[in-house]
Amino acid sequence: MEIQLVRERLVLWLRQKVSEAGARGLVVGLSGGVDSAVVAALAKEAFPQNSLAVWMPCQSSDADARDAEKVARTVGIPLITVALDRIWEELVDRLNDALASQETGAGEDPGALRMAAINVKPRLRMTSLHYIARAKGYLVAGATNRSELTVGYFTKFGDSGVDLMPLGGLVKTQVWELARELGIPDEIIRKAPSAGLWEGQTDEQELGMTYAELDRYLLSGEGSAELKARVARLEAQSEHKRRMPPIFEL
Amino acid sequence: MEIQLVRERLVLWLRQKVSEAGARGLVVGLSGGVDSAVVAALAKEAFPQNSLAVWMPCQSSDADARDAEKVARTVGIPLITVALDRIWEELVDRLNDALASQETGAGEDPGALRMAAINVKPRLRMTSLHYIARAKGYLVAGATNRSELTVGYFTKFGDSGVDLMPLGGLVKTQVWELARELGIPDEIIRKAPSAGLWEGQTDEQELGMTYAELDRYLLSGEGSAELKARVARLEAQSEHKRRMPPIFEL
Repeated sequence: MEIQLVRERLVLWLRQKVSEAGARGLVVGLSGGVDSAVVAALAKEAFPQNSLAVWMPCQSSDADARDAEKVARTVGIPLITVALDRIWEELVDRLNDALASQETGAGEDPGALRMAAINVKPRLRMTSLHYIARAKGYLVAGATNRSELTVGYFTKFGDSGVDLMPLGGLVKTQVWELARELGIPDEIIRKAPSAGLWEGQTDEQELGMTYAELDRYLLSGEGSAELKARVARLEAQSEHKRRMPPIFEL
Repeated sequence: MEIQLVRERLVLWLRQKVSEAGARGLVVGLSGGVDSAVVAALAKEAFPQNSLAVWMPCQSSDADARDAEKVARTVGIPLITVALDRIWEELVDRLNDALASQETGAGEDPGALRMAAINVKPRLRMTSLHYIARAKGYLVAGATNRSELTVGYFTKFGDSGVDLMPLGGLVKTQVWELARELGIPDEIIRKAPSAGLWEGQTDEQELGMTYAELDRYLLSGEGSAELKARVARLEAQSEHKRRMPPIFEL
């Protein structure tokens, strides 16, 4: 991979897609992680005057807040903050009240409720980013990479609810390489990858494999039989997240 | 169109899709209109014990609230309410504050801000429906029909942010026929179609054509040159809403 060429092609691709849509620029949600840092850097390069980063904390750590600020400062992209904690809490409370009101309510599985509440976060972020994009005439650029896309490690209509996926063709290890090329601070690149949906969450623990293993398999087809079976299973289970909703045909 | 056969095929299709996903039933957002009424009736028929309707008012009219209740009663599907007004207001306020905080903020176009705020409503509804679906092990069935899909008359990641689109292959006039077959109350069927995003909104006024005209063109190819051009333009402009986000290919 000629990383400098990839960078240039990505910037041109972003400009072309924004122009095709009749839009004027790009908005990017920052998480404090490397993927969104790379997208912010590319957006700034593609639209020096018309790019905007948004930090949307929702039970987020102070470390992630500092990292998001550091990314914006390094990249030179304007940053605005939309605190979602209280809105998230209110919405989840309201939803639990509604479920409890149901006469037939047999009591939901606590694990399912916990995951349901966690998925509200990326969906509120999606909603916020599209508000800002619409207000400014921008498109929403997402940060989901090819590794995550393949195994379905994203929230449907949440972090994948974007207008453009500049990193969707790059595996995580390629995103790290691109991050170094773009001058993203080293501590951001070396952070343990995390979807940041709860404290202490790490992608690799949850996926049951390292990105090095997953990416090696995606790029070269090499890996243990166990890993191949696991990826195949995750890929099949998440197929619905990578497609438009099925339509009944007359 | 053999309407009774379509009804039976739709019920079987819903059962098959839910089963394939390893889910147990269906949740449907009611708007007080005919499309969601039809989906609720089909969901109840497919899963008599495992279907749930949700009314999510957000600056909604009392008439729509009464119609949603009437639909649920007629269909015999349990109904829960999630009031979104306050959450919507808070989120939009928060977003406007964030935009105003931006040093470079040149003041956004009021029309764009108004549309941005309106699109938050279906996205909060999407978020709520998926919470409930996850909590109960159900899928979310949407109410978008083929006429709306074709001209892009829906909010990306909002009302189209569903797991299944049972009406996506039926034009609006076919949905009306199916509604009569399913015993949906006449006053619901005869209501002026409205996305309900602001008071007094009607689809046909906004689209600049009647559903009779649009559907005749979609089914038979007949219509004025003006109508054909208008449909072609709306279809092209909304292409991005009917596809997954574009991915940069390495």
